[in-house]
Amino acid sequence: MIIDEYMQKALYEAQQAAAEGEIPVGAVVVKDGEIIASAHNNREQTGDATGHAELIAIREACKVLGGWHLEKCTLYVTLEPCPMCMGAIINSRMGEVVYGAKDAKAGACESVINMCAYPLNHKPKVTGGFMSEECAKLLSNFFTNKR
Amino acid sequence: MIIDEYMQKALYEAQQAAAEGEIPVGAVVVKDGEIIASAHNNREQTGDATGHAELIAIREACKVLGGWHLEKCTLYVTLEPCPMCMGAIINSRMGEVVYGAKDAKAGACESVINMCAYPLNHKPKVTGGFMSEECAKLLSNFFTNKR
Repeated sequence: MIIDEYMQKALYEAQQAAAEGEIPVGAVVVKDGEIIASAHNNREQTGDATGHAELIAIREACKVLGGWHLEKCTLYVTLEPCPMCMGAIINSRMGEVVYGAKDAKAGACESVINMCAYPLNHKPKVTGGFMSEECAKLLSNFFTNKR
Repeated sequence: MIIDEYMQKALYEAQQAAAEGEIPVGAVVVKDGEIIASAHNNREQTGDATGHAELIAIREACKVLGGWHLEKCTLYVTLEPCPMCMGAIINSRMGEVVYGAKDAKAGACESVINMCAYPLNHKPKVTGGFMSEECAKLLSNFFTNKR
């Protein structure tokens, strides 16, 4: 599988979120070329403030691998992670993060905070803006339809 | 109940964590004077990278209240929250945070990052250093015994 297909699967998760009335953000965790976890926002349905795609996918990946170290994994997510999710990425020692659209309101990779600039105990490799148009379009369509 | 007793309950949770071989951090969420959720670190036992006391207590409080808005709640935690947990505090719109010991390695209230200094969509009231000696002593004893 190539990198586009991982983000396509994350986009598919984001579409599922939209269909469920959730802000359309999706994420997958990849290890050794395989998607081991995938998730989308579920905050409104679950009433859980931590129900973001990345956090759910990270918890799922830990379960699949039977431990909390995700050094050899890459997270693909359609939107720049918020501080909570970047914190979870750092806590799980995630090797790499690839995200789509920037989040001007809560992005913790560059837009509001650059969390990797701080002396925390892990720094994932981060690539932003990957397939960002498709990722951003899902979000803008969702909010346009909401109005 | 007075504020000391909330932190005493968080300390009790931290002691439980130590007894289970987990880094001794405990947290409680209080609403209208009542403890509605309490938790301690469980990362090693569960293998879940997000298994921090605060995040677990926040998820539990959302479950108890049936929604993700914790504006009227206060979180008491024995250690300064990490970026993930401060992010969850912000995402849940937690009204107030009271923490014990500072965390020079990962504290996101002041020690490493001051997350409330950024223009995110919520700023909880934060009080640090409450009963910090008792909170720090549990941690230093735990790490001394580990060596």
